Amino acid sequence: MTLNRRSVTVLGATGSIGNSTLDLINRHPDTFDVDTVTAHRDIVGLAAAARQSNARYAVIADETKYLALKGLLGGTGIQVAAGADAIIERAGAGTDWTMAAIVGLAGLEPIMAALRAGGTVALANKEALVAAGTIMMDAVVDHGATLLPVDSEHNAVFQCFEPDPARIRRIVLTASGGPFRTWSYEQMRYATVTQAVKHPNWPMGHKISVDSATMMNKGLELIEARHLFGVAPGMLDIVVHPESIIHSMVDFIDGSTLAQMGCPDMRVPIAYTLAWPERMATPCDRLDLAQLGQLTFEKPDEDRFPALRIAKSALYQGGATPVIMNAANEVAVAAFLQQHIGFADIMKVVEMVLETYMAPDPADLDDVHAIDEEARAFTTFHLKAAVAA
Amino acid sequence: MTLNRRSVTVLGATGSIGNSTLDLINRHPDTFDVDTVTAHRDIVGLAAAARQSNARYAVIADETKYLALKGLLGGTGIQVAAGADAIIERAGAGTDWTMAAIVGLAGLEPIMAALRAGGTVALANKEALVAAGTIMMDAVVDHGATLLPVDSEHNAVFQCFEPDPARIRRIVLTASGGPFRTWSYEQMRYATVTQAVKHPNWPMGHKISVDSATMMNKGLELIEARHLFGVAPGMLDIVVHPESIIHSMVDFIDGSTLAQMGCPDMRVPIAYTLAWPERMATPCDRLDLAQLGQLTFEKPDEDRFPALRIAKSALYQGGATPVIMNAANEVAVAAFLQQHIGFADIMKVVEMVLETYMAPDPADLDDVHAIDEEARAFTTFHLKAAVAA
Repeated sequence: MTLNRRSVTVLGATGSIGNSTLDLINRHPDTFDVDTVTAHRDIVGLAAAARQSNARYAVIADETKYLALKGLLGGTGIQVAAGADAIIERAGAGTDWTMAAIVGLAGLEPIMAALRAGGTVALANKEALVAAGTIMMDAVVDHGATLLPVDSEHNAVFQCFEPDPARIRRIVLTASGGPFRTWSYEQMRYATVTQAVKHPNWPMGHKISVDSATMMNKGLELIEARHLFGVAPGMLDIVVHPESIIHSMVDFIDGSTLAQMGCPDMRVPIAYTLAWPERMATPCDRLDLAQLGQLTFEKPDEDRFPALRIAKSALYQGGATPVIMNAANEVAVAAFLQQHIGFADIMKVVEMVLETYMAPDPADLDDVHAIDEEARAFTTFHLKAAVAA
Repeated sequence: MTLNRRSVTVLGATGSIGNSTLDLINRHPDTFDVDTVTAHRDIVGLAAAARQSNARYAVIADETKYLALKGLLGGTGIQVAAGADAIIERAGAGTDWTMAAIVGLAGLEPIMAALRAGGTVALANKEALVAAGTIMMDAVVDHGATLLPVDSEHNAVFQCFEPDPARIRRIVLTASGGPFRTWSYEQMRYATVTQAVKHPNWPMGHKISVDSATMMNKGLELIEARHLFGVAPGMLDIVVHPESIIHSMVDFIDGSTLAQMGCPDMRVPIAYTLAWPERMATPCDRLDLAQLGQLTFEKPDEDRFPALRIAKSALYQGGATPVIMNAANEVAVAAFLQQHIGFADIMKVVEMVLETYMAPDPADLDDVHAIDEEARAFTTFHLKAAVAA
């Protein structure tokens, strides 16, 4: 590998993406200097990640865990800090490359800090882009930062994309269809948490696994793609592809389609962002299509998966709507994971909130946070009523 | 379309590729000025092509047809010429873009003339590259020419390729498997010409259709790919993909695979070469994977299709071997089309010639032609004996 040595920060180091990122980084200690690793609450995981990667800083979001983390890292020389502000401060410290793998809108401020520092941000957080896409993309331009998508779908599009919009006819995101792809809507009403978090192809966190089961994940990705690639909503499409081998595609005006494929292993897109604009070797399985035998494709079903219809509407509306949709979805998914509402109730809640809660378009990050907080409060308050309706 | 105006020449204007090329060119009269159209013997087709495209020159290879062609084009102002040398002269006249769609080794000298003139050559002739790949690629460099592959497989690889060889793990050419994909070797022994030329996905000329049925076409493409992309023989692979939707793939060291896909319509790769480095709109069908439902893949079977084994061996040997293999194959396919030998005899003949006829590595085009001619004579002379063996 001929990559230049670079300093890296991993925001959300103890989750699935954080683990995979550090797995790759730790295989190339001569290439990557780990500046900072952060986590939400998992001090044991964070301490292990910091020791293994020989990080300079370990930052825990939950301030009550500061002393315990300091104890775990005693004698290592690794500097310890705690709190959301400490994470934002380290994110803005100007490392060459930052993995943004904090789940939910909590990831937004650290991402903005990293972008404002002008570095390269590998984006694994989709909610920030959904809620504040225009503001984030403006920051990329204003600060000369680089934003590389980690989501397998957007990473695939990024690899196939040609920047002249006149050449692009359509971007097609593939969807596994999730664990309930073949279930009837009636069956889904009684789906349990255990069933919903069991994704057929990708091992992922609970929130995103539920989003995959409702297919809201694909809806969020449509809105992400709009911001990342600057294409009109009508140029975005979805095809269900249960094997998750083709990660997404770009159709060009000449009839050519370019697709990026690979075994479902998040280390592939992560490695792409780590090495970009070069490529680096990974220990991932190699694609063998003859052994797989077939790839299958289906039209997405908006009747069984209303999240697709809801998200498409938010994609076209823009403004505050994606922020509200994301907030309502985060609250509803959390309520489902806590078994307060049923699986099919998640979209009932989101749809009710979008129909009844209105807000003006956000002009800046403060607006985004205000709309997000109000929409969450509104959703929480009306949760039971929405489910009963 | 924002393409710069360019002058174009179509060598082999009356065949399947030539027709498709002129179809695209004639849709954009403001972009393309047709300098020359050529054909082997078909003066009616050539006259029609010249009139439709408003060409400056129409050149027929068969000198005996000169006066008849001149009669057909009387009063049009289109200049008429005849003979192989006249084709080479026009090919070397320095048009911006040349479609090289003459079948067989007859296409070599006109291609070399176009390359030496430093223009862009869209290469639809595979035999020239197989027989004289090193010499052709040297001419590209020496004269600052551009060589763009038209074969759907190599065009696909070209679209996915990244020029740093350290990033490439493997190039995978897809093969439809031809009309006899599911036939036993015994069944193939009694295959008729009509059966052999009936390709399942692509309407093509007879020679290439038979090569597709024996799978020698894919073997020739391996050798083509070696020259076009400068990769080691061991980095080239084949997967059978009966639907011909994925046209070929490039595997990278990080586990990513990039693929180019599309409906089987040669106007897609031709348009890519016409517009390169831009893209242009085509009237071709758009890919709809959900409607297709599935793509399937199989390992190629070298027992039923010995051409694959034979061509792979020639790929590794290089030197005179691909020239001899191509010559023996051209003679054997012609003999099969004239019903002098059976379908399974084609590879028996090629294998016998490769085992018994030897030649030193060609140093220049004269050597290539000498080896080619001797190998053809040898093949013709021993044809009956090889079949009887």
